[in-house]
Amino acid sequence: MYSQLKKEAYEANMELPKLGLVVFTFGNVSVADHDKKVFAIKPSGVPYEDLKVEDMVIVDFDGHIVEGSLRPSSDTKTHAVLYKEWANIGAIVHTHSTYGTAWAQTNRAIPIYGTTHADHLTTDIPCAPPMADHMIAGNYEHQTGYQIIEHFVSEQLDYEEVQMILVGNHAPFAWGANGKKAVYNAAVLEYTAKLAYLTEQINPQATRMKGSLIKKHYERKHGKDAYYGQ
Amino acid sequence: MYSQLKKEAYEANMELPKLGLVVFTFGNVSVADHDKKVFAIKPSGVPYEDLKVEDMVIVDFDGHIVEGSLRPSSDTKTHAVLYKEWANIGAIVHTHSTYGTAWAQTNRAIPIYGTTHADHLTTDIPCAPPMADHMIAGNYEHQTGYQIIEHFVSEQLDYEEVQMILVGNHAPFAWGANGKKAVYNAAVLEYTAKLAYLTEQINPQATRMKGSLIKKHYERKHGKDAYYGQ
Amino acid sequence: MYSQLKKEAYEANMELPKLGLVVFTFGNVSVADHDKKVFAIKPSGVPYEDLKVEDMVIVDFDGHIVEGSLRPSSDTKTHAVLYKEWANIGAIVHTHSTYGTAWAQTNRAIPIYGTTHADHLTTDIPCAPPMADHMIAGNYEHQTGYQIIEHFVSEQLDYEEVQMILVGNHAPFAWGANGKKAVYNAAVLEYTAKLAYLTEQINPQATRMKGSLIKKHYERKHGKDAYYGQ
Amino acid sequence: MYSQLKKEAYEANMELPKLGLVVFTFGNVSVADHDKKVFAIKPSGVPYEDLKVEDMVIVDFDGHIVEGSLRPSSDTKTHAVLYKEWANIGAIVHTHSTYGTAWAQTNRAIPIYGTTHADHLTTDIPCAPPMADHMIAGNYEHQTGYQIIEHFVSEQLDYEEVQMILVGNHAPFAWGANGKKAVYNAAVLEYTAKLAYLTEQINPQATRMKGSLIKKHYERKHGKDAYYGQ
Repeated sequence: MYSQLKKEAYEANMELPKLGLVVFTFGNVSVADHDKKVFAIKPSGVPYEDLKVEDMVIVDFDGHIVEGSLRPSSDTKTHAVLYKEWANIGAIVHTHSTYGTAWAQTNRAIPIYGTTHADHLTTDIPCAPPMADHMIAGNYEHQTGYQIIEHFVSEQLDYEEVQMILVGNHAPFAWGANGKKAVYNAAVLEYTAKLAYLTEQINPQATRMKGSLIKKHYERKHGKDAYYGQ
Repeated sequence: MYSQLKKEAYEANMELPKLGLVVFTFGNVSVADHDKKVFAIKPSGVPYEDLKVEDMVIVDFDGHIVEGSLRPSSDTKTHAVLYKEWANIGAIVHTHSTYGTAWAQTNRAIPIYGTTHADHLTTDIPCAPPMADHMIAGNYEHQTGYQIIEHFVSEQLDYEEVQMILVGNHAPFAWGANGKKAVYNAAVLEYTAKLAYLTEQINPQATRMKGSLIKKHYERKHGKDAYYGQ
Repeated sequence: MYSQLKKEAYEANMELPKLGLVVFTFGNVSVADHDKKVFAIKPSGVPYEDLKVEDMVIVDFDGHIVEGSLRPSSDTKTHAVLYKEWANIGAIVHTHSTYGTAWAQTNRAIPIYGTTHADHLTTDIPCAPPMADHMIAGNYEHQTGYQIIEHFVSEQLDYEEVQMILVGNHAPFAWGANGKKAVYNAAVLEYTAKLAYLTEQINPQATRMKGSLIKKHYERKHGKDAYYGQ
Repeated sequence: MYSQLKKEAYEANMELPKLGLVVFTFGNVSVADHDKKVFAIKPSGVPYEDLKVEDMVIVDFDGHIVEGSLRPSSDTKTHAVLYKEWANIGAIVHTHSTYGTAWAQTNRAIPIYGTTHADHLTTDIPCAPPMADHMIAGNYEHQTGYQIIEHFVSEQLDYEEVQMILVGNHAPFAWGANGKKAVYNAAVLEYTAKLAYLTEQINPQATRMKGSLIKKHYERKHGKDAYYGQ
């Protein structure tokens, strides 16, 4: 019944080690079916080299297992919350990718310094602060989902434009219309994080690029008169 | 009719991922025929692993498509302007390579710190400033070409000696007599950018190398009595 | 008689170059049998590409060779001391991995900046200071083992929780229940060291993560109600 | 007549790209026969992927070609001078390897911060200053050899212990008893340069390791009672 969903989730997960975005089991991808209100997600702690399509676990938007013999990713409830609240995302990626995680460990948003960044979003890559102690001690992964959503509200960001975030002292999350696009966004976050890191090393007083250039690059890929791609 | 041109452009494009100069579709190479006043260029947004020789698009020096069923690179007009104004370049490469792009994001030229740099050019690697807002909002890629050319004029640089530039808050461009040489220059820019970055990290007060050493290294490769290579 | 022990030690050693943790012969793994009070260790100075199962040397917990025609790793006595004093470790890894060694060269413990770190231990990664001159000049590798143990005592650390250490001006050691887990810990140390390095580069005033988040992440993997993995 | 010499030089050259020590043609290895007073060296500007054993050029210790149809490396005279003056070196390597070259571009010796360094030499890795202008303008590559030798004299270094140097604003040279050992030293220089770079980034006030530890590590590999290796 969920074979197509499992296949897409499996394939998206397998892209992470190829793109250098994970070491060991430090990452996971899920792919959702919003009609059936379920998603397929990587099982917890299974090495990528051992992973099989049938290992994917089917979970509903409240975080309950629907199908699968393995325990799902420990971050499953974060995925469930995001799918439940954000109707237009089809897949979610969580990694501890090197540069994205280093920025997260500083609790700083990644400043928009160049067109590589502006080709994908028009703001800094946001960084949600760590949660209050009682939220961490409570339903932690569930609260992480709401921490992300509340940060988007407080920063007035649109999750359909800004498809990535850092969680403070933790690591990145990214999403997209499908598994392939979500993984692409996770890789864009990592590359942008590396460029921004180097930019500040070369010039600690580097300033954000100007608004006209941000707008131009974002719109040539995503605006109504976009002319990038086929 | 343009099969040889397409083949050279295709092969030069395929060198970029092998040399680690692109991620995803963040780069493009064109190769020109100055007699026919056309160039072959990568189609926009096509992943390198899917690229085929016949996908190359033939464009004239005013940026109009001459042959090809795919949309050419979004940077096509920048290439067209450079070919139109600079008669002696046979190929152009644009990348968002890591270290070159980081320098571009600081809007700084790359200082000439060592012989690896001086083997290829005798000045800093220039960085054209971002354009005025009305130029960005207008015919952006066309203006990018002129921004590069005008920066060469204002800095009194010779495009046949200095075969590379950074565009501020954006990324590198390089060129050369043919596809292979242009890609080589893009790789030299990236390697030189990395060396200069590390040099300043090790010694923030590092100074440029002396003129006699610049001259010696440049001339043993490019002078009238050059003795490098076969 | 020791064929299984040699095989496990061989396989664990061969993981080091695959994981990018060694160059040339700068590393070694041993695997112990606490019942027989012996361990199998890499021979000294043998390149990984030439290494064979039967090359592994069997050594007792006083550092004497029990079986094997090759000279064991020059660090053998350090391994022997750790096995003798710490009953619950089944394998030890020593590398000169890049980021771990750089931290060791600064004689600093690696601060706990994020969940990647807290998933594995709740304290900074300790750094034992270099030994007194007479200990270096004496039975150096033997003393290195006691330097590690004494640092754990003085810092009130538990070697079953904190399964890794830096030795000042030298390099990392890691251990675990078996060869595979010890190598995993050596890789975690290296990745954590890289993340902490980048974190401080991005923000030299970065602060440690808060205790509630450390506790949560450590316990979801290692606590009595752990829910990570299968 | 020189087939064995050419083969050893060829094989040593081919190690450079495998070890990540060269990009394009930015490096060369020679191997000498001190009885015949000749050495085999890489031809100038030939890409490593095209290189063949028979391409190696045989040159005497005054820098004159003895055999070979290709032009030898542009750095040939530097090699010739070193072989002529230093009777006990069998091979020389020149690279523009990343971290070694970055240090050379700062005109700084690489401080001895840890045992990885001390396993190979007991002093900083020296950096010869750039030459006087008239020497650069004159017989440049010949003078480079003497610049290296004179720096060893002025710093009271022994070329049989310290088998590597940086040439200021240029790049590293290394040597050894044979091709394999010289390439090993070039790789050790690069790795040590990277570690020292990271060490200073983590702690700009890092200090050199103490003498007793330097002595211990150097002697366990190179002293009269050495016990490292087989």
